[in-house]
Amino acid sequence: MIDQATRAAETRERILAAAAVEFAEHGYAGASIGTIADKADVGKGLVQYHFRAKSDIAGALIRAVFAHETVTDETGATPLRGIDAIIASIRQDASAYRDDVRVRAAVRLAREHDQIGVPLPTPYAGWIAQISAMLDDAIAMDEVRADLDSEREAYHLVAGFYGVQEISSRLTGRADLLERIEEMLLRSLASLGVADVQRRLSANIGSRPAQYFPHLDTQP
Amino acid sequence: MIDQATRAAETRERILAAAAVEFAEHGYAGASIGTIADKADVGKGLVQYHFRAKSDIAGALIRAVFAHETVTDETGATPLRGIDAIIASIRQDASAYRDDVRVRAAVRLAREHDQIGVPLPTPYAGWIAQISAMLDDAIAMDEVRADLDSEREAYHLVAGFYGVQEISSRLTGRADLLERIEEMLLRSLASLGVADVQRRLSANIGSRPAQYFPHLDTQP
Repeated sequence: MIDQATRAAETRERILAAAAVEFAEHGYAGASIGTIADKADVGKGLVQYHFRAKSDIAGALIRAVFAHETVTDETGATPLRGIDAIIASIRQDASAYRDDVRVRAAVRLAREHDQIGVPLPTPYAGWIAQISAMLDDAIAMDEVRADLDSEREAYHLVAGFYGVQEISSRLTGRADLLERIEEMLLRSLASLGVADVQRRLSANIGSRPAQYFPHLDTQP
Repeated sequence: MIDQATRAAETRERILAAAAVEFAEHGYAGASIGTIADKADVGKGLVQYHFRAKSDIAGALIRAVFAHETVTDETGATPLRGIDAIIASIRQDASAYRDDVRVRAAVRLAREHDQIGVPLPTPYAGWIAQISAMLDDAIAMDEVRADLDSEREAYHLVAGFYGVQEISSRLTGRADLLERIEEMLLRSLASLGVADVQRRLSANIGSRPAQYFPHLDTQP
C-alpha cells in the first residue's frame, strides 16, 4: 500500500534527522540507537526495523551527504560550467558545512571513521573528480591555461577547502567559515591564472546551486 | 637521588613511546592504561604513578608535539628566517606527520579531541602565529610585498598543510604526502608573490631543521 510506504519513508527520514543532530553534537561514540529513538520520538524497535545497527545509520548519513550532483545556478535550471561551477559548488559546500546539521554530522562521522567499523565511501576522491571535470570545462572554455593538470589542481582546491573548514571549526566554531572560504577561493583561483578573480567572485555572489546536496533540506 | 630521577624520566619516556604507538594505531577509545602498560612492558601501577588517567597521557603527547620551537638549518646552528624558515618548517612537519609515530598519535588524538574530555591546547593558533612571524621577517627582508596581511596568509598556509595531510592520509596512507606538500608550497609561495619559487624550493632541498620537534626522536 502506498500510504504505508510513504509513512515508512517519513519515519526513516525522521530517524535520520534525529540521528544527524545526535551525531553532530555527541559524535559516533556519544550517540546510541536509544538516544536517536528518543530524539526521533519513535520506539527503539522501529529504529532497528529501518537500520540494523548504529553504524548503518552513520553510513546512510555519510553516503547521502557525499553523493554530490550537478551544480546549477540559483534558478536551478542552467547547469553552471567551468570556474563559475567551481565557485558555486565550493560556496554551497561552505554554507552546508556551517548550516546543515546533516552535513556537520557526516563530516564528524567521516572524521571518526576509525570507530565506525563498516565500509564507508572513500572521502574526497569523488569530489576531486568532480572539481577536476569542472576544471576540464574551464580549460575548454579558455578560462585557464590549456596545460593545467586539472586533477592535481582539483586536489589542492579540495585540500584548501578541507583545511579551512577544519581550522575555522576549531578556532571559531565555523563563524568565519564563509569569509575564510572566499579568501581561499581568491588565492586559489588567482594561482590557477583565472583573470579578474575579484570581479569574478563579486559577479557570482548570488550563485546558490539548489540541487547540490539533493538529499538534504538545507536550513536557511 | 639522580639515578632514581633519571630512571623515572626514562620510564615516563618509555610509557609515552608505547602510548604513541597505541594511540596512533587504535585511537583514543581503542587504547587503555592496560594495553599501554603491556606495550611499555611496565606494570599498570607504574603507568598510573606517572599519569593519573589515559587522558593525561593523551594531553602530554599533544602538548609535546604541538610545542614548536625555533627552526634552524640542517647544521642546527643558524636560525632560518623568512621564506626559508617557512619552507623548512612545513617540510619538517610533513616528514614528521608521515614518519614520527608520536606526531601521528598527536594528530589523531587532536582529531578525536571530543572524546578526551580534558582541556587541550588550542590547535593551529600557535602554528599560525609562528608562520605569521616568519612572514613578518619575509616582509622585513623584502621577500614579499610590504602590505601583505601576514596573519591571514599564515592561516591559509596552515590550512593548506592541514588539508593536504588529511587527504593524503585518507587516500594514500600519507605515501604521497611529501610530494603533495611540495606542490602546495609551490602554489602558496607563488601566490604570496615570492620570486623564483621553483629555484627557491630546489635550493632549500637540504633544509632539515633538527630542533623543530624538540621533544621527539624522529625516525629516519
